[in-house]
This record gives sequence, C-alpha cells and structure tokens, in this order.
Amino acid sequence: MKIIDEAALRAAVTPPIAVDAVREAFRADGEGRAHVPAVINLDVPLHRGEFHVKTALIDGVRHVAVKIATGFYDNPAKGLPSGSGLMAVSDATTGLPVALLRDNGFLTDIRTGAAGAVAAEVLAPKTFETVGILGSGVQARHQVRCLRCVRAFTRIVVWSPNRDHVDRYCNEMRADGFDARFAPDPQTVCREADVIITATPARAPLVEAAWLRPGHHVTALGSDAPGKQELDPACLARADLLVVDRLTQCAAFGELRHALDAGLFRADRVYAELGEIVAGLKPGRTSPEQFTIADLTGVGFQDTAIASCAIALTGG
Amino acid sequence: MKIIDEAALRAAVTPPIAVDAVREAFRADGEGRAHVPAVINLDVPLHRGEFHVKTALIDGVRHVAVKIATGFYDNPAKGLPSGSGLMAVSDATTGLPVALLRDNGFLTDIRTGAAGAVAAEVLAPKTFETVGILGSGVQARHQVRCLRCVRAFTRIVVWSPNRDHVDRYCNEMRADGFDARFAPDPQTVCREADVIITATPARAPLVEAAWLRPGHHVTALGSDAPGKQELDPACLARADLLVVDRLTQCAAFGELRHALDAGLFRADRVYAELGEIVAGLKPGRTSPEQFTIADLTGVGFQDTAIASCAIALTGG
Repeated sequence: MKIIDEAALRAAVTPPIAVDAVREAFRADGEGRAHVPAVINLDVPLHRGEFHVKTALIDGVRHVAVKIATGFYDNPAKGLPSGSGLMAVSDATTGLPVALLRDNGFLTDIRTGAAGAVAAEVLAPKTFETVGILGSGVQARHQVRCLRCVRAFTRIVVWSPNRDHVDRYCNEMRADGFDARFAPDPQTVCREADVIITATPARAPLVEAAWLRPGHHVTALGSDAPGKQELDPACLARADLLVVDRLTQCAAFGELRHALDAGLFRADRVYAELGEIVAGLKPGRTSPEQFTIADLTGVGFQDTAIASCAIALTGG
Repeated sequence: MKIIDEAALRAAVTPPIAVDAVREAFRADGEGRAHVPAVINLDVPLHRGEFHVKTALIDGVRHVAVKIATGFYDNPAKGLPSGSGLMAVSDATTGLPVALLRDNGFLTDIRTGAAGAVAAEVLAPKTFETVGILGSGVQARHQVRCLRCVRAFTRIVVWSPNRDHVDRYCNEMRADGFDARFAPDPQTVCREADVIITATPARAPLVEAAWLRPGHHVTALGSDAPGKQELDPACLARADLLVVDRLTQCAAFGELRHALDAGLFRADRVYAELGEIVAGLKPGRTSPEQFTIADLTGVGFQDTAIASCAIALTGG
C-alpha cells in the first residue's frame, strides 16, 4: 500500500486534469456506469465536528476510493485546521488496498472545483466576461481555476463577509491574470456577473430570486450537508433548467431540499442530473436567455475518479 | 499519522483485551453514548466483490474509526486472499487523522469474536460443557478463544462442509486444550452442544427449529449482509429471548430480516439490543430453561472501540 502525500498530489493533479477526470465520471454516471451508495454523515456536536464518508464504483475505472472528510469548527481556536481528509484507495477488481492518499482535503477541493467547471461547461453561456463569487475561501479559488479550463473570462466580482479574506483573494486572482474586485453585497455580485458561484458555509439564503435574470447561470455548492443553504428557494422555482449532481443527495441536503420543503418545487421539476447532460442524453443550455442553476453536493464518483487519476499520475 | 501493521496489532490485541473493549462499547450503546450512522455496502458483481464501510462515535472514547472491509470471492482463484480490511482512525475531538491500522481484517475478526463472547456472557447458561460450531474458518477460532474469556468449557463439536478444514480446526483447538470433534451434520452439533455458534457464509438455513431445546443458546453471526442466512426463521419465533446487536441492521440484513420476511415475527418481539442488557437496563438469561438467540451483524461502535484500544496498546 503506497502512501502518497499532499505535496505530490498537488503537484500532479492540476485543474485541467481534474476537470477531465471529473467530466468522465459524470459521463459514466449518465451512462449508468457509476454505482453510488448512500453517504455516511456522522456529527460530533460536542466539538462542532462532522465526518463525511463517500465512495463509488465506476465501471471501467481501476480503483475504488473511500473518502473520509472532516470539518471541526472549534479547531481554529486550538490552532488546528478545521478540515481534514484522506482517501483509502482499493483495487476495484480485488478489493485489496492500493494507496492511502494523504491529501488533507485537497482532492475533495479540486474535484469540487472541477464539478463546477463541468456544470458551467454545459449550462453557462458560451461567452461571458464576469464571474461573480460569494465566498473567498478555498473553493472560491478552485472554482475559478477550474472554470477557466472550459470558458474564457476576464473579470471576477467577489463578496464575502470578511474583508481581509476578500482582499487577499482579489490579490491572488489578479496574480492569476484576472481583473478582480470586491463587491459590497451579494446583490451587487449578481448584478455585475454573468455566471455566479456560491461557495460559502451559509445556513440561510444569500441570493434572492429577484436579483437573477435571463442568461444567468448559478452554481451553488455550499449546501453539501443538512442545514446548509445559499439560495432562496424561489431561485430554484424560477430556473429554466435546474440541474443536480445527484437527485437523492440534493433532495436530502442540497438547495433542492429547501425548495421541496418550501413546497415551491416538486422533484420531478428537476431538469436533469449533470451526468445525463454530459453523456448527451439531454441538452444543456440551448438559448442565451435561459436562467440555469446547478445544485452540487459532491458525489462519491468524483472521489473515485480523482483518486484513480491521482494514483496513475503519481506512479501508483 | 501513524501506520500500524497487522503483526503489531495481533501482538497487542488479545482475546481478553478485545472482549473488555467490545463489552464497554455495548455498554456505551445501551447507555445511549454510541452514535452509529447507517453502513455503506457497495457491491462489485463483476468480481463477486463487496465493500463495507462502518463507523461510529462513542462519547468518552478518544477516537473514531472508519473501517473498510472487503470480500472478493474470485480472489482465491487468483492466489489472493478473499478478504481485506483497514481502519482509518481520527481523533474524536478534532477529526484529524491519528493512525492507519493495516490489520487486513484482523481487528474485525477479533471484535466479532468478542461480540459473541459478550452475548454469551449475558445469554448462555452459567456453566456448560460443549460448544457447537458451524463453520471452521477464522470466526470459528475467534469465537472459541473469546468465549473462553467468559465461560469455562471443555468440548467443541464442529461441522463444516469441508472435512480438511474441520480436521485442521480440530487440531488447532486440541492444541488450545479442548476436546474437539467433528460432527457429520448440523443436527448432531445441535444435539451434542449447549451453546451453538453459527459462523458460516451460508445463504440458506443450516439450523432447524426442531433441533433446538430449552437451555440452548445460539449466537448467529454469519448473516452480516443482505442475502445471508444460517437459521430457519422458525428458530427465532421459538426463542424465549431474541437479542440483536443493532435492531436496524438485523431487521435489514440479519437473521431477523428473514423472520420478518416470513411473517413469523414482528420487530417488537425482539427482546433487546445487546447493549441494553450489558448496561443493565434489562436482564439477560434468568432461567436455565430459556432458549436464547443472539443475532449479530457487527456494529460500527465495535470497530471504534477495538481501534481505539489498539492504538492505546501500540503507543499511538
């Protein structure tokens, strides 16, 4: 069993590689080749902590990853990182252990960025200038770096409650060649941007339906566990195309959950799972006037795909 | 993150230690201190394989183990072991990785043996002479070695379809100090034994209700996944006390499942979860005439308990 550390994984798994691997995983899912058991969520209320375990089998992929991700929100006060993660990877034909990927969450971060890019590839307008970001954390970075693999854009408008974080983020994005600017509130982000990415740990809506217009594409990825929410449910009710990464997960704890709870939406109004569009079973955006939303919760087949790709690239 | 290998774990985690750790885990469960999410089961039909992932939080235990166990039944034909397993252990207060236990399934095997002993401790007669075993594999060994931590007995009667395996097993048990003998069929085992342990991968009943009598205790542990079965459902219907390790799991894929499917039993006829008895909320066996059954599927808190104990013993 090979132990591969975070530095080796960061060096090997670049955004274009991640986007290709994750696109193929969604295609496999659309073609019925991905087998995804229900995820494990284990809460540790005493320490404001949570464990999430995901896995999946993809027919034709050599490995199965079991991904363990944790978030413990009292950690920073102890001088520790809030999140950690690792993947235990087995041979898909024998079950025997192949590698431990000590990625500390990096592979989850980049495969999440890649899923945003795959969603935008089929749902966002072909050309646009400005990406709006809510949030200024790790995902705000990965989303932009992966999105630029599939679309050319020059401007970033970003809002997040912590001005220091936003300033640091804008500086980094400028170094990446973007015109990056702070917006004073989410509404300004929506007004100025063509494509909007919500990447926050919010537990109440940040985006109102009235701020969205024809042509907009929104990727919401903060709602990855029960209780989280970034969009007012009315946004989903107004969408021409609502696309989910996995219907069972989104109905349980994605943005979709809140729309279902609000009675504004029935599950059969979901247009498609992202894999169905990537596999060509349904078209993505067909008109510049459509308003589209991608509700992403993160699926185990993304973990298996990125892990198998990482092992191949690091000589496993 | 410490990597602890199988040899170190085998040296440290002896049957008495395992029985103590697993007993405390059941007690914690009975006291409401164990938090057990649903398990992940992922099938790989093309290679007759399966992945099982279990985890649990036990209030007061320092670690959380995520246990990955695999069984791939085409492996032996390739010269590979059919089963493998490992546990990724995190600090329960921060989520950060602490150790990888490369036990190749040993810890699962011994904690399963220990659960059998904990069940017998509260359900089997106080004194008896003969243990009957169906099966002659790894569990047939662990069950006996753990059971002798809680009961004195001298004789073993064993049946399994493979005579070579049985002979090897009897020789090993004789070396352990037992009078061990082959029985030609399961019915003979039931006639000669006081306590019966079923430890096979059977998918159809091996034990008939008519073979069981007052005073018998049966521990059934082969039925740990959908489709497996060792007892005729009528056995459960006849039991004075049917005890399960975890009601939700047994109702889904234990012996209980088959009794429920057969309409012979309602879930409210289950006497107790084992933890309730260990914690003293309900008595175990109260009369030498009772006929008792323990239906054991293996619970994530056993994994967390044995892993935390193993780490303490190996200096983690």
